[in-house]
Amino acid sequence: MVYDKNETDGRILELDPRAETSDEIQSLYNNLDANFLLSSAYLVFFMQAGFAMLCAGSVRSKNTKNILIKNVLDACVGALAWFYLGYGFAFGKPSKGTGMNSFIGNGNFAMKGVSTQKDIAMYLFQWSFSAAATTIVSGSVAERTKFEAYLGYSFFLCAFVYPVVVHWGWSSAGWLGPWRAATGDGGGSLLAGSGMLDFAGSGIVHLTGGVAGLMGAWIVGPRTGRFASDGRVNPMPGHSAPLVVLGTFILWLGWYGFNPGSQLALVAFEAEASDNARVIARTAVTTTLSAAGGGVAAMVLNYTLYHVWDLIAVCNGVLAGLVGITAGCSTTEPWAAPICGALSALVIHFSSKLLLKLQIDDPLEAAPMHGFCGAFGVLWVGFMAKKEYVSEVFGTARNGYEPAGVFYGGNGKLLGAQICGIVVITAWVATTLGAFFMVMKKLNLLRTTVEEETLGLDESKHGGKAYSMELVAPEPA
Amino acid sequence: MVYDKNETDGRILELDPRAETSDEIQSLYNNLDANFLLSSAYLVFFMQAGFAMLCAGSVRSKNTKNILIKNVLDACVGALAWFYLGYGFAFGKPSKGTGMNSFIGNGNFAMKGVSTQKDIAMYLFQWSFSAAATTIVSGSVAERTKFEAYLGYSFFLCAFVYPVVVHWGWSSAGWLGPWRAATGDGGGSLLAGSGMLDFAGSGIVHLTGGVAGLMGAWIVGPRTGRFASDGRVNPMPGHSAPLVVLGTFILWLGWYGFNPGSQLALVAFEAEASDNARVIARTAVTTTLSAAGGGVAAMVLNYTLYHVWDLIAVCNGVLAGLVGITAGCSTTEPWAAPICGALSALVIHFSSKLLLKLQIDDPLEAAPMHGFCGAFGVLWVGFMAKKEYVSEVFGTARNGYEPAGVFYGGNGKLLGAQICGIVVITAWVATTLGAFFMVMKKLNLLRTTVEEETLGLDESKHGGKAYSMELVAPEPA
Amino acid sequence: MVYDKNETDGRILELDPRAETSDEIQSLYNNLDANFLLSSAYLVFFMQAGFAMLCAGSVRSKNTKNILIKNVLDACVGALAWFYLGYGFAFGKPSKGTGMNSFIGNGNFAMKGVSTQKDIAMYLFQWSFSAAATTIVSGSVAERTKFEAYLGYSFFLCAFVYPVVVHWGWSSAGWLGPWRAATGDGGGSLLAGSGMLDFAGSGIVHLTGGVAGLMGAWIVGPRTGRFASDGRVNPMPGHSAPLVVLGTFILWLGWYGFNPGSQLALVAFEAEASDNARVIARTAVTTTLSAAGGGVAAMVLNYTLYHVWDLIAVCNGVLAGLVGITAGCSTTEPWAAPICGALSALVIHFSSKLLLKLQIDDPLEAAPMHGFCGAFGVLWVGFMAKKEYVSEVFGTARNGYEPAGVFYGGNGKLLGAQICGIVVITAWVATTLGAFFMVMKKLNLLRTTVEEETLGLDESKHGGKAYSMELVAPEPA
Repeated sequence: MVYDKNETDGRILELDPRAETSDEIQSLYNNLDANFLLSSAYLVFFMQAGFAMLCAGSVRSKNTKNILIKNVLDACVGALAWFYLGYGFAFGKPSKGTGMNSFIGNGNFAMKGVSTQKDIAMYLFQWSFSAAATTIVSGSVAERTKFEAYLGYSFFLCAFVYPVVVHWGWSSAGWLGPWRAATGDGGGSLLAGSGMLDFAGSGIVHLTGGVAGLMGAWIVGPRTGRFASDGRVNPMPGHSAPLVVLGTFILWLGWYGFNPGSQLALVAFEAEASDNARVIARTAVTTTLSAAGGGVAAMVLNYTLYHVWDLIAVCNGVLAGLVGITAGCSTTEPWAAPICGALSALVIHFSSKLLLKLQIDDPLEAAPMHGFCGAFGVLWVGFMAKKEYVSEVFGTARNGYEPAGVFYGGNGKLLGAQICGIVVITAWVATTLGAFFMVMKKLNLLRTTVEEETLGLDESKHGGKAYSMELVAPEPA
Repeated sequence: MVYDKNETDGRILELDPRAETSDEIQSLYNNLDANFLLSSAYLVFFMQAGFAMLCAGSVRSKNTKNILIKNVLDACVGALAWFYLGYGFAFGKPSKGTGMNSFIGNGNFAMKGVSTQKDIAMYLFQWSFSAAATTIVSGSVAERTKFEAYLGYSFFLCAFVYPVVVHWGWSSAGWLGPWRAATGDGGGSLLAGSGMLDFAGSGIVHLTGGVAGLMGAWIVGPRTGRFASDGRVNPMPGHSAPLVVLGTFILWLGWYGFNPGSQLALVAFEAEASDNARVIARTAVTTTLSAAGGGVAAMVLNYTLYHVWDLIAVCNGVLAGLVGITAGCSTTEPWAAPICGALSALVIHFSSKLLLKLQIDDPLEAAPMHGFCGAFGVLWVGFMAKKEYVSEVFGTARNGYEPAGVFYGGNGKLLGAQICGIVVITAWVATTLGAFFMVMKKLNLLRTTVEEETLGLDESKHGGKAYSMELVAPEPA
Repeated sequence: MVYDKNETDGRILELDPRAETSDEIQSLYNNLDANFLLSSAYLVFFMQAGFAMLCAGSVRSKNTKNILIKNVLDACVGALAWFYLGYGFAFGKPSKGTGMNSFIGNGNFAMKGVSTQKDIAMYLFQWSFSAAATTIVSGSVAERTKFEAYLGYSFFLCAFVYPVVVHWGWSSAGWLGPWRAATGDGGGSLLAGSGMLDFAGSGIVHLTGGVAGLMGAWIVGPRTGRFASDGRVNPMPGHSAPLVVLGTFILWLGWYGFNPGSQLALVAFEAEASDNARVIARTAVTTTLSAAGGGVAAMVLNYTLYHVWDLIAVCNGVLAGLVGITAGCSTTEPWAAPICGALSALVIHFSSKLLLKLQIDDPLEAAPMHGFCGAFGVLWVGFMAKKEYVSEVFGTARNGYEPAGVFYGGNGKLLGAQICGIVVITAWVATTLGAFFMVMKKLNLLRTTVEEETLGLDESKHGGKAYSMELVAPEPA
């Protein structure tokens, strides 16, 4: 604000509280926004516990410790990978401020120069996302993969492959997303005039994790005995339903950090006060309704097909609904969210069947859930993003920014950007992780021996069984 | 604020920050209050995981998946029921703004017209409560109820029966609560001059769920073999103590959303800044102390009676203490909170014995916990609500509003309102749910066959056992 | 702010918004800071669930209910002990405002006079810490201690021993910490000119709990059969790896309340707005990186030594890293945090070996984890506290306060204060708890009989086994 100091003889200026308090207000906003990011990060971090319980419950008891240690280490190895390299490749800016490019970040490694409360909080929030992306893979390659191979892909994904995708879609220099600056290093026009809209990462996080898992499941090969010689599938049910449900609920809870948290600020946007919480609250509602739609649709589908009230399928339906809404959670109208969830439940069901037909063995259905439903979620935005919501959420990036989904009168250009995003992310992850798994296979570092697999990885590699419970006599019927 | 613009030649007005910032301050308050509601809603939602673990651990292992799928679907079916109907019946206002009545809401179905950040957040917060109310029932009818019947009562309760109670007690048009407007559609004088005070829902949520469960347990009938022909009770212990404890702790955590969150705003009340957090913090403290009092009292009681340090009884005591303080958490002095919890532990103990004597089989003691302790909690307010706290918490509703519990010099009118609330809620829920369960019974849709029950519902209806663990030899003693 | 009212004819004063809104702003700050404390308290409270799951999974299945009930009651008994006595001994001020001393608090018992939102929230936050300190012990004395003895030490620790340490280190009258007032009752100069710096309690909470556990484990004696006559150690593995992992993740989550929450305020410090969230966010980052460093180091160490990918060791490494960073989380540079975690993993590894050599049986490694790593964490600050961070975090206490770790040019005086703190806390806790356990032993109230221990405490004292699961045939290999 500019005004004529002389006109007021300086007196009013002296007393004008804005002069003194604007710093204080800015500090208040920064503290509140940082805290919002941190709280969201904690919830997203807790998804690691959800993945761990879901995975543990879904494998056979003889491989429980094997998958649990992977989940714990995804958080640990990922934290170091993200610190030293990942964040810098995703969001890093060269210290001189020039030389940014639209492909990969280059700066801020080991948090150098990350010093304001919002920046530090953003660092942690993004770390929690990277841990989620990494953990998705462990389900796909469960029960037969060497631990050394896991350590390798976990680091590779978290330190390089995933950060590059983040840079494309979420950084201010990325060529794929809507946040690209108009000018300057790494700047330019938006893809199809809109950029791919992926609010919380159906594509950037889940599709990335899912494709990585798919490559792993395919290249590692199925578990011994999973497919009979005639192609029939031998069921290998998980060993504990309560753990699956616990994992599902924890993941659902964590999604309230994942999706609403992706608004990135509670009270200010680009340092201006705004009604951010309207977007945040709407996002929480669509997230809830899509999860619900997914669960109910999975229940109906499985009862219709098999006359079973299938708990695991309902849990997977809930999670599919959550993955599916993640890209469009802030731009979908509430009435449409249950439909998004229901369609996601169909996507996971049929893509799981497809993988089995292809004799690709994904014990957790992680590729169908995160890969296929993730792609569906990105597509969904192309059809169902409401123009007013898109402007509200992404409109600060560019003046007059108002793309829309086809259903809301969009001309299909946004849909094109979404499809482009799916294709490019899939190609990038399939290539890099495919090459990685192939090399590991050639080096004989990828797969455990049949003996180890039969005995169980816990006994053969992890020092003993996961459970040591005394026998209890069967209760009288 | 009114002042004479001319007097200052317009200069000061121009510089006066209030003119410019009042919108910004209001937006800040709205964002903060919405976020407080959302954070609370997430905690309350997480109670679904608590109920799921508590229920799973408390049933026999052969019915684990059956009760887990109910808990997952309570969140899902409930989310849709609340979206399409429940919220509208509870808080809905006709779009024309007239025609409100004190019995039931009529508007805002499918969130039509719910558009500000606080309204959307309130929607989600209230959804999480409805899911809790619904889930309570599943414990009472566990291990022998048809899944179809469950789907029916879950929807009926969440879409209609519970929202009506909410409308009575918490909406601005409800005849039972303290928030009723003085004039206008649905307005009028307060019941007994005070209305029933049920801050976070000992009556509105827990009594409702508990009575519904009681009707279910009674009409479905006891589990096969639960009562011997001579009336003796055969113990049917739950199958996993760790799950019970995990569920208890998650529920306790969730209660910090349930009770403190019921202040509904962190920084502003009726758009005026206020010291809300004093009420919120005091509520968190009384909630803690009542839980503690309940746990310790249950420990002492059970050791005195049976010389057993009874883990499950202590968990139930904690939860009873939480239910008991829910109505009065904001109006009880901290010193009295442990007493509230201890009395709640007595209530659940003796009401459980009563049900067994009546040969009503409630596997989770859900009716004693939520029904009887819920009623006790509503009563507690009639005795122990401190006048100053009542004014602080509810006083914005009406000028000169200062009812008090009998112990604090109240004249008994508040107590009368509380009793009236208990009677009416009980009658309403018992009638509607009783009729529902009776009809289902007549249609033979209520109860599984003895064969299915004996085999276990997991095997007979849910595609197989919940656990598939390998045998471990007994460890040497 | 002082200005000449006459100069402006009173008009500007009238319109000056600060005059009217400063109360409102202060109320806003207070609400926000109280809510930050409450949210942190809820996370720390949830650590009780983490301890419960970790402990349950780490003992033999026959003693599961025994350790679970201890964990539940730590929260309950602790809540009452803290309410009536503990808080008053830790932070209490005499109602007349004089007579404070630097050894123990004396006032505010039963929350008398605790009435502002920040004070009430602080009360609850500190309660959650006391519960954590108390619970640590139960792991050390697991599987062979009488329940009555547990009730005794739990109350004694929470009501007296721990609050005294808190008073020393964190109250404004404590002789040990940096917050001591310069003058007045209980005031004086700081120990070694700096006081012991223990931001979130590596020493005050964890060392206290760990030493208490060590005394217990030593005086109760090892579990029957733990050590062979030739001194060899018989492994007694825990019964459920998923519970251990779940507990670890919940504890990690809770640490985001424990460490960042210890900044105690989000937006204001000593009623002045400040960039608190920068400290809070940095603390969350160092906490994460130390946990990660601990987990990775434990993995490498155990694979190097034993060629096992040891899940339990990795979990313990993570927790050791969390304990180790707790004192220095706000004053450690991020790059150093993984090193802190890795060193903590070494500390727990070698101190565990030491205890086994001494034939002290600590089933949960609670003394190595909380005691030894806690002491290490306090030491770490003496070496690695960055001067600028120390000033930022603790500088408001005194003008020109700028101690530093040896690595950052400190003169060793801070290191001396840290060592002094370790010695005094250890001596205080070892003396008081040692005396307590000795007396209980003399009175024959400390240890269960060999028969009870062999049968399992669940059967002998808690009314039956923790699990009642049906047999499942071993799956074909």
